[in-house]
Amino acid sequence: MKKLINDPHDVVAESVEGFGLAHPDVVRVHTDPLYVTRAGGTVPGKVGLVSGGGSGHEPLHAGFVGVGMLDAAVPGAVFTSPTPDQIAPAIAASDAGAGVLTIVKNYTGDVLNFETAAELAEADGTTVRQVLVNDDVAVEDSTWTAGRRGVAGTVAVEKIAGAAAERGDDLDAVAAVAQRVVDNVRTMGLALTACTVPHVGRPGFDLPDDEIEIGIGIHGEPGRHRVGLESADALTEKLLGPVVEDLGLTGGERVLLLVNGMGGTPASELYVVYRRARALLSERRVEVTRSLVGNYVTSLEMQGASVTVLRLDDELTVLWDAPVHTTALRW
Amino acid sequence: MKKLINDPHDVVAESVEGFGLAHPDVVRVHTDPLYVTRAGGTVPGKVGLVSGGGSGHEPLHAGFVGVGMLDAAVPGAVFTSPTPDQIAPAIAASDAGAGVLTIVKNYTGDVLNFETAAELAEADGTTVRQVLVNDDVAVEDSTWTAGRRGVAGTVAVEKIAGAAAERGDDLDAVAAVAQRVVDNVRTMGLALTACTVPHVGRPGFDLPDDEIEIGIGIHGEPGRHRVGLESADALTEKLLGPVVEDLGLTGGERVLLLVNGMGGTPASELYVVYRRARALLSERRVEVTRSLVGNYVTSLEMQGASVTVLRLDDELTVLWDAPVHTTALRW
Repeated sequence: MKKLINDPHDVVAESVEGFGLAHPDVVRVHTDPLYVTRAGGTVPGKVGLVSGGGSGHEPLHAGFVGVGMLDAAVPGAVFTSPTPDQIAPAIAASDAGAGVLTIVKNYTGDVLNFETAAELAEADGTTVRQVLVNDDVAVEDSTWTAGRRGVAGTVAVEKIAGAAAERGDDLDAVAAVAQRVVDNVRTMGLALTACTVPHVGRPGFDLPDDEIEIGIGIHGEPGRHRVGLESADALTEKLLGPVVEDLGLTGGERVLLLVNGMGGTPASELYVVYRRARALLSERRVEVTRSLVGNYVTSLEMQGASVTVLRLDDELTVLWDAPVHTTALRW
Repeated sequence: MKKLINDPHDVVAESVEGFGLAHPDVVRVHTDPLYVTRAGGTVPGKVGLVSGGGSGHEPLHAGFVGVGMLDAAVPGAVFTSPTPDQIAPAIAASDAGAGVLTIVKNYTGDVLNFETAAELAEADGTTVRQVLVNDDVAVEDSTWTAGRRGVAGTVAVEKIAGAAAERGDDLDAVAAVAQRVVDNVRTMGLALTACTVPHVGRPGFDLPDDEIEIGIGIHGEPGRHRVGLESADALTEKLLGPVVEDLGLTGGERVLLLVNGMGGTPASELYVVYRRARALLSERRVEVTRSLVGNYVTSLEMQGASVTVLRLDDELTVLWDAPVHTTALRW
């Protein structure tokens, strides 16, 4: 295993420490338990937004902490849910009197631990609501999930809910718009290579040199099926087709198109995928009015990509466009 | 070779086309010949800034086109210099009456082709100055260079010169501040894995599973020497030491610290390197007042990282902090 790490068990703590040192204008790192909040603290009367999950998907979630997006992020060990005693203080630290919405990717461990943490926080007087992200159309159940997995669509949920909270929407309204994003966003991904969890020390699965895994999850868990080497154009069609079908997109609709890298794929390849996805949507008379291309929800050093489509309306567009100041998204 | 591409010979054109489609608010792509300019066009009376070089280092350079940074970028084939007949129109398109500064990484092909292009542009009435970036301390000459190579320090040159041009400095002044960055920035990198140029189809060099190349260039050209597997802390010391020595940094000085990913390394590992570099600089009583961590000057899917230090003064700090609106840097 070749990685730029020290003791594999220290990688998350050391990485988050470095992250805090590099971005003191945006985030503050809390240790024991480990979580990340905005450098500027809470905004009185604003709904708090908290997310988190296993590490290894950077910049998700700590890279999305900041004005216009999350109030706090809770990083677990690599590909392992954070514990309730990490999450509960992050919820408490994000409560500015208007309650807290937790944004949880649909994995069994995350769901359980965020629910337990919410109960702890509510016992201490914080009102907590939760939205569950389950945008992956590849599989109905998986190794670590009952129901669909939460993947790259999480970025859109966090951005849009964050903008709603920032403009002063109340907890019910922020939860409702977050749910509206969940209802209108779908993703499918593929892997060219596997990734290696540091404390495991070997790749999470075997993928021969001449095969590609279609429908991969963000932990390297199996997808739908394997195919041989194909062109980027053909592979993009295999990702976008199920996404569009599942969304029931029709001609004349407007969408956000996100091409997300899994961590080890060059930006140039993501733009090749984006180009083809644009052409395929154009053929269906679907208009791409907003775009995002880059590494946002990754699987360590895995080579691969996912395609996410969010059906937009005027309000979701305004919220997507609203100012954001995090380390990974900024405009 | 597993890549998200179509015909290997089309990867640059298709990728840049996708880049233009994704970011119409920031850039405009020109084809035949291929170059990228700002979506908003030139600013009358502003010095034009043009850079370019072989593709495969994204987001360099097209990702740095936009307000506050470059006016135009010229992408060559992968790891191959752009041609004079690509560069000359990009220079002409960036001339708003105050002349054009070209920012050239020190590789033999780039230097020759940018010089020829400058002669063509000058024959057409554009005043052209050039700054040569040669921040890599690893080797004095290399496969593709007489003298030191230009690597990740290029980002600092483009950002700071861009800010100087934006505030209205004349051509001599912009060239002078760009040269001041060159004189005060140093970099050294390492590779954990090789990368594969699409039209070659096999890795550029062999690196055994238990060896790391210290002093690697951004094309996978050889560095100083190979070492066995070591901790991130030990490897960071091997990169930072020569950089600090070459700069002649002394206690009390302020610096920008850039930890750059080579394309295939997870963000979490870059922050582990950053953490150690901060500690080492702190031991020398060098103060890190600005930071940048991420994939900025890459080598396709290569796993590895480089450490860049720029000695700051008040003016360079102000110019670094000035607003920038590109696809890869934005604040």
